[in-house]
Amino acid sequence: MPDDLTLSPHPLDAAIALDPVGEGRFAGRTSEAYWNMAGPFGGVTAAVLLKAVVDHPAHRGRPLAQTVNFCAAIAPGDFEVAVRLVRDGRSTQHWQVELWQGEVTAATASVVTGPSRETWAHRPAAPPVLPPPESLPVLPTAGRMGWMGRYEMRFERGAPVPGQASAEAPGSALSRLWVRDEPPRPLDYVSLASIADSFVVRILQVRGDVPPVATVTLSTYFTADEAEMARQGARPLIGLADARVFKHGFNDQSAELWSDDGELLAVSHQLVWFKG
Amino acid sequence: MPDDLTLSPHPLDAAIALDPVGEGRFAGRTSEAYWNMAGPFGGVTAAVLLKAVVDHPAHRGRPLAQTVNFCAAIAPGDFEVAVRLVRDGRSTQHWQVELWQGEVTAATASVVTGPSRETWAHRPAAPPVLPPPESLPVLPTAGRMGWMGRYEMRFERGAPVPGQASAEAPGSALSRLWVRDEPPRPLDYVSLASIADSFVVRILQVRGDVPPVATVTLSTYFTADEAEMARQGARPLIGLADARVFKHGFNDQSAELWSDDGELLAVSHQLVWFKG
Repeated sequence: MPDDLTLSPHPLDAAIALDPVGEGRFAGRTSEAYWNMAGPFGGVTAAVLLKAVVDHPAHRGRPLAQTVNFCAAIAPGDFEVAVRLVRDGRSTQHWQVELWQGEVTAATASVVTGPSRETWAHRPAAPPVLPPPESLPVLPTAGRMGWMGRYEMRFERGAPVPGQASAEAPGSALSRLWVRDEPPRPLDYVSLASIADSFVVRILQVRGDVPPVATVTLSTYFTADEAEMARQGARPLIGLADARVFKHGFNDQSAELWSDDGELLAVSHQLVWFKG
Repeated sequence: MPDDLTLSPHPLDAAIALDPVGEGRFAGRTSEAYWNMAGPFGGVTAAVLLKAVVDHPAHRGRPLAQTVNFCAAIAPGDFEVAVRLVRDGRSTQHWQVELWQGEVTAATASVVTGPSRETWAHRPAAPPVLPPPESLPVLPTAGRMGWMGRYEMRFERGAPVPGQASAEAPGSALSRLWVRDEPPRPLDYVSLASIADSFVVRILQVRGDVPPVATVTLSTYFTADEAEMARQGARPLIGLADARVFKHGFNDQSAELWSDDGELLAVSHQLVWFKG
């Protein structure tokens, strides 16, 4: 591999790069590579906000949970991030993060971190059983939003294909797929935070169209420890996403991300605003 | 009914009463009626934090989503709450709330509010089918934590009974029940926020014991509008709670709350810390 390729950062790392500009303050900028309809892909914003915590010198342990609130559209260009340790407890640290452009707070996040611990373990949930990734077609992303090209998605069911359902004859909200960063990148918490939002909006497969739509709030629980992620490396994860209800202009979404050896790596939930 | 009963507030309303002490600041106090093992029942803390938003004069619309982070144990006695409008958008308002005692931030919350809208609606999820509430026994709460007496729970399955499972032979994490405030109280967003946390910790029915345990973060999506709650009134809701995984000292929990006429009123998720 030529030097210039081995040396260039992965697009995700370029997109979430933060420059320290003071105590708990960082400067960042949006990435064209992860652009969505009217702002950056929400997953990369979640990754930026998580990275601000992981980069903080007072940070201990690993990310356990993150909630991101998407408050306003993020315009292309520079943004600032501030991170604050709200509570430094024995078993957890609680962080508050804010991202703004000019006078507008565009996103906030709460992040809980804590030491890795070994305890009694039990898994009531079963991993989805999917055919091997190489047996499923890669979703074509040419001509779609930029961020979709940053993921290799191989759907077993529930591919986001316009026109396969309608408001009168809704399709299933369930998707199951193999998903990984494109190009491949060893899994860590920031990439996991981003992949947790990589399930294309449920309304597309359910109703067949994409009205104006935006994630309002996103909560991800990181159930993987470092060892489980190291074992997974850059290989595709199994993803599952579903929705319970669409009404009053909002729908919920719940997602799971599993390693290919059957570990639940993350659970993620969101509330999505839609128009009409 | 004698005057002194009709005039006394419901214990929930007494527990979440907040006195304004300045712009966006309130004074409150813990309630013995909703006491848990080592602090107030998390649901009532969620209700307090939501009430601080609902009571704010700049608040528009209805609660859509709330995330509560439980940062430190709350001691019996007084606390203060500060609420801040982070972003006043066209379709949503984003609020940040903090609860503290002395120098310690004990809880934070983000709350999203917005106008009620009528849109296309679709419900992929099915309401659980339970026998009528009066056909199921009321869970005895004498001798248990105070807050449990503030709810009438009638379990169809997954009652929180110690010793029915063990670490070696785990029981199911699924519970289904009828639940309402005790005494009955017409449903509103603050009571819904509290009921969303009323599912007894999953580890008890799964492992048969209760190790030291605490909710770390709780996110509730309020999928009900005012009309759906008014229709439900004070009658029991259908509740469902389950967990996907227990490992590294944490477990997830997802819950649904349904009206008795088949509307999904709230979806709620949490990450729970446990010891050993």
